[in-house]
Amino acid sequence: MTNPVPTARKEISLATWTRTVKRSALQEMLIAASRPGIISLALGLPASELFPVSEYERAAGQVLATDPDALQYGPPSKLLRTQIVSIMAQRGVTCREEQVFLTAGAQQGMNLLARLLLESGGQVLTEEMAYTGFQQVIEPFEPRVLTVPTDLETGIDVDAVETLLRDGARPAFIYAIPDGHNPLGVSMSAEKRRRLVELARRYQTPIMEDDAYGFISYRKSATPPMRALDEQWVLYVGSFSKILAPALRVGWLIVPQELTYKLSILKEATDIDTSTFTQRTVSAYLETGHQSGHIQMLRREYRARRDAMLSALAQHFPSEARWEEPTGGVFIWVELPVGANTDELLKIAIETEQVAFIPGNAFCIGGSHKGINSMRLNFSHCDIERIESGIARLARALKVVLH
Amino acid sequence: MTNPVPTARKEISLATWTRTVKRSALQEMLIAASRPGIISLALGLPASELFPVSEYERAAGQVLATDPDALQYGPPSKLLRTQIVSIMAQRGVTCREEQVFLTAGAQQGMNLLARLLLESGGQVLTEEMAYTGFQQVIEPFEPRVLTVPTDLETGIDVDAVETLLRDGARPAFIYAIPDGHNPLGVSMSAEKRRRLVELARRYQTPIMEDDAYGFISYRKSATPPMRALDEQWVLYVGSFSKILAPALRVGWLIVPQELTYKLSILKEATDIDTSTFTQRTVSAYLETGHQSGHIQMLRREYRARRDAMLSALAQHFPSEARWEEPTGGVFIWVELPVGANTDELLKIAIETEQVAFIPGNAFCIGGSHKGINSMRLNFSHCDIERIESGIARLARALKVVLH
Repeated sequence: MTNPVPTARKEISLATWTRTVKRSALQEMLIAASRPGIISLALGLPASELFPVSEYERAAGQVLATDPDALQYGPPSKLLRTQIVSIMAQRGVTCREEQVFLTAGAQQGMNLLARLLLESGGQVLTEEMAYTGFQQVIEPFEPRVLTVPTDLETGIDVDAVETLLRDGARPAFIYAIPDGHNPLGVSMSAEKRRRLVELARRYQTPIMEDDAYGFISYRKSATPPMRALDEQWVLYVGSFSKILAPALRVGWLIVPQELTYKLSILKEATDIDTSTFTQRTVSAYLETGHQSGHIQMLRREYRARRDAMLSALAQHFPSEARWEEPTGGVFIWVELPVGANTDELLKIAIETEQVAFIPGNAFCIGGSHKGINSMRLNFSHCDIERIESGIARLARALKVVLH
Repeated sequence: MTNPVPTARKEISLATWTRTVKRSALQEMLIAASRPGIISLALGLPASELFPVSEYERAAGQVLATDPDALQYGPPSKLLRTQIVSIMAQRGVTCREEQVFLTAGAQQGMNLLARLLLESGGQVLTEEMAYTGFQQVIEPFEPRVLTVPTDLETGIDVDAVETLLRDGARPAFIYAIPDGHNPLGVSMSAEKRRRLVELARRYQTPIMEDDAYGFISYRKSATPPMRALDEQWVLYVGSFSKILAPALRVGWLIVPQELTYKLSILKEATDIDTSTFTQRTVSAYLETGHQSGHIQMLRREYRARRDAMLSALAQHFPSEARWEEPTGGVFIWVELPVGANTDELLKIAIETEQVAFIPGNAFCIGGSHKGINSMRLNFSHCDIERIESGIARLARALKVVLH
């Protein structure tokens, strides 16, 4: 070893793009909100007390007792994929078992699709406010993010999508949430779904349809997701996290069959496979027929919580604040008067009132500050008493900020 | 819409690097070997009949009965990380809970580390034969792969590593397997470990230490992994897959504490979190104290299977074939006389003798064909009777190819 040792650097050198990444506001909230005494309206957590624990335990016991390979590596379950075809039929979607690709949840589904479709430095089209987990998915590609306006009342501006595509934009995909938008709570009209799918076909640009909250609908007859309108250009992302339990880490994609081969390669490189044991336990649970009634129960319970939050907002919040009644999902988006700053509000709310939410800024993309006076409130995790108390506390913190 | 529609392309456009990716030979084998009647010596599967099923079921039931948030999203378990500190002490490694980063298995651990460290088009240093899953991990980065010779008897050529580094190579990391090398079965000498760590320090180049098989040792006193020698430049990858069960999808990294913040961001973007339920069930299982005796039992059982395979090889294989007795892990690497082609042998072996293995070519990196006359045989998955039958069948297929 006669050569000189290179000049000292004490730390491991990281890939360039990771040098600036920060934890998402949601992850920070998970930490802050786990302090005892905090009422958290921040994260999109389902209600723990509504999980079908005993049914799931029975299913797990049955699988372990009867299936010698339940704890082994294994290929994706054909039975579970067939069951997902039935679940999708409840959403008005016709698909085949061969189009179902199993994932370790919706986040992994989006991640795999982004890696399959997006070049480094490529284009992505999204609303100017979007789920932070989606932003994290595309970040490593350092993409050119094309944004279109979105609105609390009507959601994604499809005219703006058309203008971008007509003017030559060719994104790897369009990201859209049909129901219970995260963070706005809005659901797309049937007409907007039809038009967006038509644009996807015309410009041969796939839609990544994030339907994580699609089964949590409060309407008598829900509008089917865009996948019901097109099986070639709509790549559907689904999950058991909101309709069964997040800790299963099982979700699915519905994609053209020819994409499943490459997705299986990306999946293997990522984490080998989705837990055989969990796949089989979910199947055993679904076999009992409990799922359909369980989703009905969740809709009833979450609707009652939504209504409690809407009432509390009407009672406690200033008249200049604006919100809509969401027809699906687990979020209410509240816009405060111009000049209010919800980043500041959050600090006061946590410190003086022990209540947490996600400030609107966290969801803004591409340097937009449209969310600066807004906040996302979750109504699925806390019971009605805590929701009412949380909104009253938040209104008190708000008075400090506004006056 | 007055603009012309772009020229038709019927299929979704994929990211460039994915256009050429193919399923790994291991994944293909998983499919072929799942045909009934096949004796598979191909994959690195643990023995299903040795899983601690009833203990795991008891732990799962206990967690579901007592922990209302067991099925919820959640932060990484502090208890499980503390338990992993104790497990690492059994390997001769001293670490702190804050240095333990939980993953959904070793594959995800490698994937997260590669994304943290490797630039697109950057350098990676590895042996000329390496685990196919590692090759899949680095593929999306289209890296410059620097290879060093490796050998069935002594493993990685550390002199060659030194030459590369001295001549200016600056890989993002050096990939190395200390024990039960996949595919060669070899374990690194204490002297090689010491020298490689010294090079990592001197050239400030981290080692990604893949210790998936490290706990499956057949020596009276196993050599500690390289992480025991350096806590700054050795990034350790561990897993419960081989010592508990693969379908848990839980593993860990031991890294400098300052890397865990960015890893947690990459993890969240990938799949939100590792199943809370599984983390807590593994903890409850570990609390029973069953683990240590279980690993002892696995070592005894797998050693007996290894010895059965070695005896069968000696009995049935031609005298020109070469192999070593592995001191750890679950693989025996067999080199056939020059001129033999194990890709061809595999086809005949599956078709005429119903036995499967992985041809050496699958593990070669950087255009090397050094493995063309070699094969990787697994001895952990089949019982002794099937191992003996499998080797006898393989020897018959070999006669067809050699004569």
